[in-house]
Order: sequence, then structure tokens, then C-alpha cells
Amino acid sequence: MGKNRMEAFSDGVIAIIITIMVLEMKVPRGNEFADLKPILPVFLSYVLSFIYVGIYWNNHHHLLHSMHRVSGGILWANLHLLFWLSLFPFATGWMGANYIARTPTAAYGFVLLMAAIAYWILQNAIISQQGRDSLLAKAVGADWKGKLSPALYLAAIPLAFVSAWIANGIFVLVALLWFIPDRRIARTFDAV
Amino acid sequence: MGKNRMEAFSDGVIAIIITIMVLEMKVPRGNEFADLKPILPVFLSYVLSFIYVGIYWNNHHHLLHSMHRVSGGILWANLHLLFWLSLFPFATGWMGANYIARTPTAAYGFVLLMAAIAYWILQNAIISQQGRDSLLAKAVGADWKGKLSPALYLAAIPLAFVSAWIANGIFVLVALLWFIPDRRIARTFDAV
Amino acid sequence: MGKNRMEAFSDGVIAIIITIMVLEMKVPRGNEFADLKPILPVFLSYVLSFIYVGIYWNNHHHLLHSMHRVSGGILWANLHLLFWLSLFPFATGWMGANYIARTPTAAYGFVLLMAAIAYWILQNAIISQQGRDSLLAKAVGADWKGKLSPALYLAAIPLAFVSAWIANGIFVLVALLWFIPDRRIARTFDAV
Amino acid sequence: MGKNRMEAFSDGVIAIIITIMVLEMKVPRGNEFADLKPILPVFLSYVLSFIYVGIYWNNHHHLLHSMHRVSGGILWANLHLLFWLSLFPFATGWMGANYIARTPTAAYGFVLLMAAIAYWILQNAIISQQGRDSLLAKAVGADWKGKLSPALYLAAIPLAFVSAWIANGIFVLVALLWFIPDRRIARTFDAV
Repeated sequence: MGKNRMEAFSDGVIAIIITIMVLEMKVPRGNEFADLKPILPVFLSYVLSFIYVGIYWNNHHHLLHSMHRVSGGILWANLHLLFWLSLFPFATGWMGANYIARTPTAAYGFVLLMAAIAYWILQNAIISQQGRDSLLAKAVGADWKGKLSPALYLAAIPLAFVSAWIANGIFVLVALLWFIPDRRIARTFDAV
Repeated sequence: MGKNRMEAFSDGVIAIIITIMVLEMKVPRGNEFADLKPILPVFLSYVLSFIYVGIYWNNHHHLLHSMHRVSGGILWANLHLLFWLSLFPFATGWMGANYIARTPTAAYGFVLLMAAIAYWILQNAIISQQGRDSLLAKAVGADWKGKLSPALYLAAIPLAFVSAWIANGIFVLVALLWFIPDRRIARTFDAV
Repeated sequence: MGKNRMEAFSDGVIAIIITIMVLEMKVPRGNEFADLKPILPVFLSYVLSFIYVGIYWNNHHHLLHSMHRVSGGILWANLHLLFWLSLFPFATGWMGANYIARTPTAAYGFVLLMAAIAYWILQNAIISQQGRDSLLAKAVGADWKGKLSPALYLAAIPLAFVSAWIANGIFVLVALLWFIPDRRIARTFDAV
Repeated sequence: MGKNRMEAFSDGVIAIIITIMVLEMKVPRGNEFADLKPILPVFLSYVLSFIYVGIYWNNHHHLLHSMHRVSGGILWANLHLLFWLSLFPFATGWMGANYIARTPTAAYGFVLLMAAIAYWILQNAIISQQGRDSLLAKAVGADWKGKLSPALYLAAIPLAFVSAWIANGIFVLVALLWFIPDRRIARTFDAV
């Protein structure tokens, strides 16, 4: 299978995930501004998740940019990543539906953690196919962002039971960290 | 990232938005024509939103036509536009569910306004990358439609509280204004 | 805009329509075979609509095959067709939800009729761009299927109020008529 | 019609199917871990179905890889496969909603069986177009997996009424069998 097929399929799945998340924002029955109030936390969760999925889509392309051949292992590592991303609508809906309560926030953190691990597995599968001296291996380098993010998610899960707001603060922080597309990779490839 | 990926992803998201909007039209329980009556305003909002999303899809392509390289700024300006477009199903559903009431109409106008601003930001990001002398900058020119539309949406929001019908009249007017694909851009590129 | 973009967007919208129709088949609460009984008419409507959307997708490609340049008129004629196709999930759900009742069946026939008219408008827009001597004009020829189908839908709408089964029989008949991809067009292009 | 269109459309439909399945996991009202308990079987069914759809997507590409021309028969054999795949969300939701009860498990097995038969029909349609000496015919060879799977699904349907767990064990077993992409086909094409 060519890389284009895997890219197109991933793009399709990510486009659907980012769009159906909005369906968790149920249209209110009333027609006053006050009726929007219970939807506010769903809206805020949606904004956060939209940014996260946007970041994954962006980094996913940087990752696949240097890849040429799809092996069975890479294909399933990619589907594994898509699986955890597909749980974003559910996790977003649950966190939002309960005005940012503790357990749903911890569950949201868990989905973020698993997606980060899945991304790391995919990255390693591609690097191991291309060799340690490959462009991607150099571009990723020490990969402090890739190592820090799961650690922060892992910390956020128990902290959610102390305060859902601390955990959400961590989620926002990690999003800001990744918001800027991976300049290391961009720089390395531009330098070629 | 090549421009094709951003185009394909945007096409996917817009195709999903335009299609899931129809899910806000819930199948009625009864089986008489009278049972369609409460759905009529949802249907009318759907028609309006379908035309708006069609216009955005159309203009989006004209915009990207002259672009060759995707920068991080353009990528996020594009995701920002898709974010506001993704709120169309919610805004359409809310306006339709309440027989064109005042607050939902104002909310619909707000989403239209934000999408117009997001489009304007994206247009400027592309022009600033290409330079003031670029084909797109010339094609857009004085951009009276791009300046008039947000002004009209802005006027429609308070007017919705006077009468939802005046605001909806403005939305229809702006749609008609854009219905004709941007001849300035088409003409400029054809002239090349 | 190139023809590829319009094809890709139409493919996306049609793929979503054909897939979200299945969401009208709500998962039953019980867990016996008897609990599937109220879903049977929805399932049958779904099968019929799936075949119809499949036929439209198939013929849509034959239609666009000979087209090279997208004009504003063709673009909106295409969006107009997609609009009526997007009402298939609603019409299918309503007809199925009421065990094939009269009014929902007539409404289904109306959506079929409007989609057929929209297809005919798109076909004419493409032919008028290419000229009466074009390959497509010759391939379409007398177009008896394109003329007979709307006539049959038009007959089915009042007949639905006599018996929903007669109208559904007509829908099945027209589907069978189109099931075979348009051999005229295929033959003409193969002959080139 | 070129093969690319059929591939792109199938990719779109499969991407939507794999993603909307997650909508069957309804967001719980409560905000405790205990509130996730009724969702656990839906989650497990979702994991199983996600893997199945992933396998179909993967094998579908291997199948189309050797094909060059789309005939009407192949096109409808492909739509027939997509039809049964489109019932996965419903079957998954029903099996999951009832804590893996007998009848929904048998229904799930039936959908798996029909999808397997549809895949076999598509494979034969492509082989019969290319001839018995074609690369695909050789690659498929004795096709023991393609013959064993429907037999196992067929056995699982009555066994589901003995115990839903036995049937689910069989579904997991067949998934493991296919998890590894079809090495026969991969090997044969690589050898060329």
C-alpha cells in the first residue's frame, strides 16, 4: 500500500472526528441566552479538543512526510492512534456534560495519554523502518515535547481528583506547547 | 506540508459539516403533512446554511488557488475558519428549533460574523505571505464584499432582538451577494 | 476550479449521505428478534435509498467524466443536486419510521423527484457548456430514462395516497431501471 | 470510471463507518466511574468492530491493488460490500447495548457473515475480470482464510444462542486470524 492511501484515510477519519465532536453540543430547548449556560462547558471542552485534534493532524503529516513505504506494523500503529483519537468526541462530551467534573476530567486525561503513547509508538515504528540515521530520527532528536506531554497527562489524571481545574490547566498548557508546529522537524527538512 | 493536504482536509471537514446539518431535522413521530410543520423553520435554516457553506467552500478554493506553500500561520488560520464553520450545524439547529426566535437568530448572526472574520484573517495571512503585489492581493482589491458582510452581520445581531425576520432578511441578502462566485478573482486569474 | 475538486467534494458528501442514513436505524432497547420488527421498514427503506444513492454516485461520475472546466453555473447545479440528495436520510427515516405510511411515502417520492430534476439541470448545464455535438450530448441521446424517471416519481406521489405499496413499487421499478449503469454513455465513450 | 474514484469513495465510506460507530457509546449522565460500567460492553464491541473494519480496509486495498479497470459488476459488488459494512455501527450498538446478549450477538455474526460473503463476491468479480492466471488469482490461491471465516461466522450464529461468549470468542479468533495483513498477496506482489 502506498503512503497516500494511509494519509488520505487518516485525513478522512480525523476530519470526521473533529466535526462530529460538535454533535455533543445538543441544541437547547429554550430560546434565551440563559439556555446556552449548560452548554458552555461542552463548548469549552469542544474548543480544547478541536485544538488537540488540529495539533495531531498537523504533527501526523510532519511524521508521514519522510515516510515512503507502509509496512503492516506502521499501518496498525496508525490505526491504533486513530482509535484513541476516535474516543475524543466521547471524552469531550462526558467532560463537558458534567460541568468539568473530576472523574470525566481524569477520563479525558486518560484518552489524551493513550493518544500520546499511540503517537509515540507510530513515530518509533517509522523511525525503526528508516534507521536511526534517518531524517525523521534527527528531526525528532531528544523529543522532549513527546516525552513531557505523556508525563504531564499522567500527572493530570490523579490531580483531576484534587481539582478538575488543575487538570484542565495542564491540558491547556500541553496544547499551547504543541500549538506551534514542530519547528525541529520543519527546520531539519527545510535544511535539506 | 503541501497545499493539497490542507485543501483535501478542508474539503472533508466542509463536506461533513454541510451533510450533518441535516441531522438537526429530526424525523417526526406522526405521519401526516401537519407533522412536518414544526420542522419547516429547521428546513428553512438548513437551506440558508447549506447555501452559506456552499459559498464558503467555493470562495475557499478561489483563495487557495493562488497559494503554494502552507505556513504554520496559514494552517491555523484555516483551522480557525473550519472551527467557526463547524458551529453552523448547532447554530442552524437552534435557530430552526425555535421557529426563528430572537436570541437564536442573534447567535446565528454571531457565528456568521466570526466565520467572516476568520475568512478575512486567512485571506490576509495568504496575501501577507505572497506580498502586496501578488495576484490574490490584486484580485481581492478593495474587497467591498468582504468588508460589507461582517458589517451587515454586526448590524443583524442587535436587529435580531427587534425582529428575527429583519435579521434573517439580512442573512439572505448577504448570501445573495456572495452567491455569484467572486468574479473579481476569477477574472484576474483568467486574465493571466 | 478544477474538476477534481468538485468530484472529490461530491464524493465526500455522497459518502457521508450513504453512511449517515444508517443512523436512522436506532438500536432497539430489547434483545430479542421481535425487537427488530419495528426496525424492518426502516431497514427496507435504507436498502432502497442505499441503492438510489449508489446509482446517483455512479451516474454522477459518468456525467463528470466528459467535463473539463467547472463554471459557476455547473458548480451551483452540482450543489443543488447534493442538497436534494442530502434530504435522503430524512426522507428515508420518515418513511421507515412509520411502517411505510402514505404521506411519508409521498414525501420520499417528492425528494426523489427533486433529485432527478436537479440531476437533469446539472446534465443540461454540462451539455450546454460543451455544445450540442459533444460526446456527452450524443451519449445521453434521447435520454428516455432521464425523462421517464421524473414522470414515474410524479405519478407515485398522488398514488402514495391510494396505497403506499404502489408508490414503493414504482420506486423499486425506477431503481431497477437505473441499476444497470448507463450503457449508452459507457458505450459511446468506449467507442472513442 | 477509473479505479481511483472507487478507492477514494470506499475509503470515505469506511472512514465514516469506523468513526460514527463511536456515536453508539452515549455519554453517561452521571460523573462517576460507576457510570461507565453500562458502557463497558459497548466499548468492547466498538474495539472489536474497529479492528474488523480496519482489517477490511487493509484487505480491500490489497484486493484493488491489482485491479485497473472498474466494470459495472465490480462497482456494484463493491457497493454491496460497503452496504454490509455500513451495518456494523448498528450491529455493534445492539450487541453492546445489551451486555452481549444472545440474539444481538447472533445478529452481529450475521452481519460479519454477509460482509465476508460480499468480500468473496468482490474478490471473485475482480479475478474473473483478470483471468484465472492473474496475479491476484495466484496470490489468493487456496484462500483458506477466506473460506474458513464465513464457516466460523456460520457456526457462531447458532452457538450464540448457547452462549454469547462462545460466539464472541469465535469473532475474536477470526479477527486475530486476519489481523496480520494477507502475507500471501503481499508476498506474491513483492516477488514481481
